[in-house]
Amino acid sequence: MSETNRRYVLGARPEGVPGPETFELESVPLEEPESGDILVRTVYLSVDPYMRDRMDASESYADPWELGDPMRGAVVGQVAKSNYDGLEAGEYVTGELEWAEYAVVDGGSVHKIDPELAPLSTYLGVLGMPGQTAYFGLLEEGRPRAGDTVVVSGAAGAVGSTVVQIAKLNGCRVVGFAGSDTKVEFLEEIGADVGINYKTTDDYRDALKEAAPGGVDVYFDNVGGPITDAVFTQLNTDARVAICGQIAHYNAESVPTGPRKLPQILTKRASVSGFIVSDYAPRFGQATEQLGQWVGEGSITYRETITQGIENAPDAFMGLFEGENIGKQLVQVSDESL
Amino acid sequence: MSETNRRYVLGARPEGVPGPETFELESVPLEEPESGDILVRTVYLSVDPYMRDRMDASESYADPWELGDPMRGAVVGQVAKSNYDGLEAGEYVTGELEWAEYAVVDGGSVHKIDPELAPLSTYLGVLGMPGQTAYFGLLEEGRPRAGDTVVVSGAAGAVGSTVVQIAKLNGCRVVGFAGSDTKVEFLEEIGADVGINYKTTDDYRDALKEAAPGGVDVYFDNVGGPITDAVFTQLNTDARVAICGQIAHYNAESVPTGPRKLPQILTKRASVSGFIVSDYAPRFGQATEQLGQWVGEGSITYRETITQGIENAPDAFMGLFEGENIGKQLVQVSDESL
Repeated sequence: MSETNRRYVLGARPEGVPGPETFELESVPLEEPESGDILVRTVYLSVDPYMRDRMDASESYADPWELGDPMRGAVVGQVAKSNYDGLEAGEYVTGELEWAEYAVVDGGSVHKIDPELAPLSTYLGVLGMPGQTAYFGLLEEGRPRAGDTVVVSGAAGAVGSTVVQIAKLNGCRVVGFAGSDTKVEFLEEIGADVGINYKTTDDYRDALKEAAPGGVDVYFDNVGGPITDAVFTQLNTDARVAICGQIAHYNAESVPTGPRKLPQILTKRASVSGFIVSDYAPRFGQATEQLGQWVGEGSITYRETITQGIENAPDAFMGLFEGENIGKQLVQVSDESL
Repeated sequence: MSETNRRYVLGARPEGVPGPETFELESVPLEEPESGDILVRTVYLSVDPYMRDRMDASESYADPWELGDPMRGAVVGQVAKSNYDGLEAGEYVTGELEWAEYAVVDGGSVHKIDPELAPLSTYLGVLGMPGQTAYFGLLEEGRPRAGDTVVVSGAAGAVGSTVVQIAKLNGCRVVGFAGSDTKVEFLEEIGADVGINYKTTDDYRDALKEAAPGGVDVYFDNVGGPITDAVFTQLNTDARVAICGQIAHYNAESVPTGPRKLPQILTKRASVSGFIVSDYAPRFGQATEQLGQWVGEGSITYRETITQGIENAPDAFMGLFEGENIGKQLVQVSDESL
C-alpha cells in the first residue's frame, strides 16, 4: 500500500464557473484508522451537480465546504484496514467520503454492500442517491397518473433516465430533453415516447407542442433555464412540477432572470415543489428494494460514464455542466479488486 | 320600475391597461322573466381583480368574455319579479349575474340570503368569495402552524385582510404589505404584527428581514412583482407559498420577467401552489359557517369601500389596480330596499 494519499481540497471559492484553482490536489501521509475507524480504498467516486453549491460560502441545502477542506462525495470503496467491529478488510462499503484515494472514517458511518447482488458502481447510480432521487421525486412530488404526460429535463442523466423509466412503468407518455443525438437515441431505447435534442432545436415550445399535444401534467426539472420556460407555457391544469435541479443556474454570478412563472402557476393551479432526497431517508430501503427488483427484471436499465483516475475528477465534474455524460458520471479511482 | 336596464358589455379587448373603450354602458329594454326565471334588481356589484383576465381572449382559469357580451360578476340583489318556485319578490339573493341594474336569471342559479343574519354586502366580502378564498387559500395551501411567520401581500384588501386575521387566529406572526399609511394602520388594527407600506419603502428585502427576522414560513401572494421577489429571498426551509393573485402582472402586454425563483424553491424545498377558490366549492358551507362565527364574535372584522352608481363601476374596477380600496371594493347600484 502507498504511504501517501492524494485528495482534492477546495482551493478557492469559484466565482461563476469553477476553474483549475478550485480543485487542489494534495498529497498527504496515509492515516491509520483508530479504534472504531476503517481505512477505505476508494474504487468509484460520484461527481454530482449539487456539489457546485457546496463550493459557495452561502448557506444552501447542503453545508458549504470550507477552503482547504477535502471535497466530499459518495464513494464505493473497499475496506483496506478495519478497527471497527462488523466490517472486515476486503469488504465493500458505500458512504459519503472524500475525493481521495483513501479515507479514514468511523465504521458506523458507511454501509456495507454486496458486490454479488449488483455491480459495485450501481450503488452510486440507479440503486444509490440518483435512483432514490428519481423514485421519490417522481412518485411523491410529481404524483404521475396513468395517461399523464411527463416531461423530464436532463433526461439522459443518472436521475433523468431513471425518471423516464419509472414514468413509463406508471403508464405515462414521456418526453425527454437531452443534449445530443446519441442521448436522444438512448432516451428512445429506454422507452421515452419523444426525445428532444435541445442543442439542435430552435423553438422548445413548438417542439414541445408537437411532442406533448395534450399538454404537460408532470414536469421533472433537473435543469431550469429556457427548457423550463418552455415547459411552463404548456402546463395543464393541476400540473405538478418537481424541482430536482437547476443546473443551468448553478454557475450564475448574479441572480438569473427570466420569464415570471407565478402567473402561470396561478392560472394552471399548478404545484411546484423543490425537494432533497435526504428528506425521504427513512424510506430509502423501500426504494432500493423496488429499484433493485426493476433492474433485476430488466424493467429499468442504466448507463454509466466512467472517467479513469482521481486526477481527472475535476474534468468529470465540470463535464456535468457541459452535458458530456450519459447516465451516471463516475470517477474510477482504483480497480474493483487488487 | 324603469322600462330600461343599463348594463356594461365588453366594448373592446384591452391591450395592457383597460381604457374607457373597454367598458361600454348600454341601455336595453327590461326583460321579463320566463317560467323558472327571476328578475333581480342589483343592489351591490362586486368588482374583483380576476375579472381582468376574462377581458382577454386567451383561455385562462376563467372563461373569456365575448366582445359585446354583458360583463359578469358577483351580485347581491333583490328579487323584483319571480316565476321560480322557492323565491318570492322582495327576497334577497346572491349569484354570478351581470354588471347591470337588473338581470333575468334561472332562479336555481342564485342563492337566497338572509339580511337579518349579516349585512347584505358581507355576502360579497368576508362571507362570500373573498372570505372563502382567504380561508381555503391560507389553511389548505399555506398550511400555517402556530409560531409560523406568515407574509401577506395585498394585505389590506378583501382577501388579504381576512388572511391576516385567520393567520393570527392560528397563532402566527403576521407581516402584511399594503400601499398606504392608512392601510398599514388598518393592518395593525386587525392584528398584523408588522405592516409595510410598499409605496414608501425602498428596500423590501431589508424591511422584511427586520419584520420577519426568523424568515418566512408561509407566503400568501395576491400581488406578484417586486414584493414577491423580496419575499422569496426570505423563505425558510419547507416554506409554503399560496399564489392567490398576481395583480401586478394582469395588465402586462408581454410576458413579464424577473428574478428566477425555481432555484430558491429548490434550495428551500418550498411548495408553491396556485389555486382557485371554486376547487373548494363542496366545502363552502363549512367555511361560511366558520367565517360567520368569527365575524359574529368579533374575531374577524372587515372593511368595505363602496362606490356609488353603476356608471362608476369601471373606475371602481380600475381602482383595484391602483390599490385605492381598503377591504372589499363594491359598487352600490341601488338602495338595499326601495
